[in-house]
Formats: sequence, C-alpha cells, structure tokens
Amino acid sequence: MTWSERYPEYCSMIEAALPQYLPPVTLPQGKVCEAMAYSLLDGGKRIRGCLTLAMCELCGGEVQSALPLACAIEMVHAYSLIHDDLPCMDNDDLRRGKPSCHIKFGEGTALLAGDALLTHAFSAASDAYFNGTLPAETVLRCVNQLSRAAGVEGMIGGQVIDTAPEEVPMTPEQLEAMHSMKTGALIRSAAVLGCLAAGAPRDVVMQADLYAAKIGLAFQIVDDILDATEESEKLGKSTSDADNNKTTYITLYGVEKAREMVRRLVLEADLAVKGTVLDDEMLYELADTLAKRHH
Amino acid sequence: MTWSERYPEYCSMIEAALPQYLPPVTLPQGKVCEAMAYSLLDGGKRIRGCLTLAMCELCGGEVQSALPLACAIEMVHAYSLIHDDLPCMDNDDLRRGKPSCHIKFGEGTALLAGDALLTHAFSAASDAYFNGTLPAETVLRCVNQLSRAAGVEGMIGGQVIDTAPEEVPMTPEQLEAMHSMKTGALIRSAAVLGCLAAGAPRDVVMQADLYAAKIGLAFQIVDDILDATEESEKLGKSTSDADNNKTTYITLYGVEKAREMVRRLVLEADLAVKGTVLDDEMLYELADTLAKRHH
Repeated sequence: MTWSERYPEYCSMIEAALPQYLPPVTLPQGKVCEAMAYSLLDGGKRIRGCLTLAMCELCGGEVQSALPLACAIEMVHAYSLIHDDLPCMDNDDLRRGKPSCHIKFGEGTALLAGDALLTHAFSAASDAYFNGTLPAETVLRCVNQLSRAAGVEGMIGGQVIDTAPEEVPMTPEQLEAMHSMKTGALIRSAAVLGCLAAGAPRDVVMQADLYAAKIGLAFQIVDDILDATEESEKLGKSTSDADNNKTTYITLYGVEKAREMVRRLVLEADLAVKGTVLDDEMLYELADTLAKRHH
Repeated sequence: MTWSERYPEYCSMIEAALPQYLPPVTLPQGKVCEAMAYSLLDGGKRIRGCLTLAMCELCGGEVQSALPLACAIEMVHAYSLIHDDLPCMDNDDLRRGKPSCHIKFGEGTALLAGDALLTHAFSAASDAYFNGTLPAETVLRCVNQLSRAAGVEGMIGGQVIDTAPEEVPMTPEQLEAMHSMKTGALIRSAAVLGCLAAGAPRDVVMQADLYAAKIGLAFQIVDDILDATEESEKLGKSTSDADNNKTTYITLYGVEKAREMVRRLVLEADLAVKGTVLDDEMLYELADTLAKRHH
C-alpha cells in the first residue's frame, strides 16, 4: 500500500464521519455547535486520524472499526488548537488562514467549544463499542490511553511547559521532552489506538508507538525549520519564537543540523517498523512526506 | 440508612481517593498539578460524588467499586467551576471563599487545569475497570453517560444558554431547561453512574435519574432564593442576577412561590423512589437537606 493512495480515502472516511459526532446546531445552545463545527470540520490535514486508520489496516483490522477512534483523536486535536489560540495562551488571531475560533465566535463560546470537543471525543471513542464493532475492553483501553495522552503527562503538560516564561534557555533534553508531550503524545496515541482497534499484540503496539514518536518529533523540527526559514525569507527578520527568546531546534542547532536531525528521525521511524507486520511502503512514505512538507 | 450517618463516610472515601487521580506536582509541569489540586481538593461538599456512592449502595453494589466513578464526577464538577469563573465567562474572583483558580494561578494555568481535570476524569472513570472491580461494558457505559451529561446536550449546553445575553426574559420552560442542563445533567449522571456500578436494572436507573432530576432542580431554586434573600438582607439591594437582568426563579415567581416549588420538588423526588429498591430514609433526608441548606 502507498500513503498517497490510502491517505485520500482515509481522509474521506474521517470527513464523512466527524459531523455525526457533533450536536445539532438547531439546539437553543446551537452557537457552541457552530463553533465546534467551524474548528473541527474545516481545513485539518487529518494526519493523526489517518495514522489511526493506517495502523489499524496494517495490523489486519477492519478500518471502519477504528473510525470512531480516529474521530476522537481529531476532536481532541481540534479542542487543543482552540484553547491554544485563546488570548490567555498563544493569543493567535488566525488558524489555518481563517480567524481563530475566539475571533469568530467570542472567547466564551470558543472556550466552551473546546471543552465540548474534548468531552464529546470520549463519546465518540466509546461509540466504537456501542456501534458494535469493537470489544468493550479494547475500547476502554483506548479511552484510558487517549485520556492519558491528552492529559498532564502528555499534551497538556507540554502546553504548560511551552507557555511558561523561559528564564533560561531550555536544554536539548528539555526541548525534546516538551515536544514529546505537546505534539508527540497525541500522535503516538493515534498510532496506538489504531493497533489496539485491530487487536494487535503488545510488541506491535510498541513498534507503532516508537514509529509515531519519531515522526512526531521530525514533524516538530520541520515546523521550527519552516518558521525560521520562511519568516526570514518573507519578512527579512528572524522567527517570532526567536523574537520571544524561545528555545527552538534552530536556536539550539541551526538550520543545517536540524535538517540532518529530521533525516535521522525518518530513518529511525523506518527502522522501528522494518521487519515487523508494520513494514509497509505506506509508513515510509508518510514519514518522508512529513519530513518534506512545506507550510 | 440515614444520610447524616453515611454522608461523612462517603466524603472520607472520596477525599482519600481523589489525590491518586492527580498527577504529581514534582513534574516539570507541576504548576498545573498544583492548580488542579487547589480546585479539586479543598472545600467541596461532594454532593455529586456522594450521590454516586449512595445509589450504588442502595442498589446493593459494592460502594468501593463506584469510587473511581464518584471521583470522575467530582473532577468534572471541579473543572466546570474553574472554567465558569474565568474572565471570559462569569469572571468570578472568589470560589468557596478563596481566590478562584485563575486569580491564584493565572488565567492560562487555570484554563489548562480545567482541561486537565476534565481529561483525567475519564482516566479515573476507566480505572473502575482497570483496578479490577467492574466489568468493561459497565464502565464504558459510564464513560459514555458521563461524556453526554457533561457535553453540549448537558452541562456545557446549559452554560452556553446561561452566559448568552438575555434579550428577552426567559420563559419558565426555558429557565428550567437551562438549569436541567447546567446543573441537573451532572447530578443525574452522578445518580445513574452509581446505579450502573451496582448493575441495577433499567427501571431502577430511571427512578434514580428522576429522583436526581428533582433534587437538582430544587437545589437550583434554593440557590436563587438564597441569592435573593441573603443579598437583599446583607447588602440592602436586589440580587446580582437581577441586577444583570437575568431571569431567575425569583424574577419569575417571587420568593414565596419559589419556596413552595422547592417543597413540591422534594415530594416529587421522594415519590420517584417510594416503593422501589431505592426507597430508603437516606434519600428522603438528602432531598430535605438540600432544600433546607443555607449558603
């Protein structure tokens, strides 16, 4: 299988399934439903949800059965972006080229839309059992895994560290730990949930987890490279992170060394699945695509 | 059994169990853990969590087995208070006589502490299976029930309506619908989860649900009465809700009629469980206690 062939199909499945997990906008509280739909349904690349479906398929599972889990992952991702953009966090007015949720709907509604997407993600995940496709124990394991990945020892923890004022620059270990939590944990969870849905054995789950950890970090370093090079090219100035005196892979290593790290991480991701049931062209292509992406 | 006898014991169980669901403050992201503990561990009456344990015990279940669920309910309640107090919502500086979470820890940390309590509530709930006491299907049903109660058709939906500017006064039906969602849904969920933990049959779950809906509404009307009478007594002015031109049970009915409504709701709560397995002095006493409470 190839990523370029499967990816559009996974995306279509996810785009078709997501709306069913949103409450109807005709409710008296419909404003928050509009805000949820605005942030969830438009413009995401669905890398995380697609990774769930890909891992499920590679492990020999029924892709359809992992779909509620893929939707749950995308809902958690969308909630995190809404809350990250709020004035008390990164204070970003734009997201995917559109006004961010709080600019469009107001801060209170954006807060509640984020809360609601997180809350409903757990309804969506549990739906993998109630629609009759997966065993209760499997789904409960996914719920537990997802809540841990999204929690203080995962995504939220990374966000806490990322938004704390930096009194001294982070060490390479601290920077990696922060990103492993902030973006890595949810990407890893996406991969793990796909394997769990397929009933994969423990060693396969661990290989998928390692692969996802490597591509997650590569993804983040590419982000830093793009921020540094695109901004300096376009605006003739250094990056906003650098302006804020924030430690990045560029401030620590420079662009060339960072590019080399990305290449190494892609190799390590490939190695994590080589010779396993996950040894498939699709995953090599995905790692490569993420490493070579542009904004 | 009596409420005055069982309530302190339920509370002790919950207070002893809650800290184990909080991540350690020694983490680099420990600031958010402090904020979670600050809001979760201090001063709550634990009515919701205790209701879960009471319903479980009355249905013949092992109280201990419902404890992770009771903790999950309390965590969802604590998250909702943190987010409700934020400047973009009710903008309250005080909660339970202490600085509210964002005053003490800053807005960003309070936002994330709320997010984290909601997220970890689902870890706590799923723990009812992983610690070996309840079947996976039962726990998954509780996860699903809790996420729906806390979501847009429950607690969040009520909050959306409550914080929307009132262009015209609400009708009695709208006011009741708002409160049924904003506070009623979680109180009902607390009762239902206790019954589910005990493996109670469907009709008993429905009786518990009805009882909880009645005491939830009584609770809210008492709130309005206390706001109206205490403030006007203490401050010689009408209530802050009335100042904001918000519809309350007092603006719609006046204090005397509202008191009568509370008495009727307590009778209806009692009737909901009379002659069922839930027919126990404990629940009559709880309803009565809530109706007669002071701030």
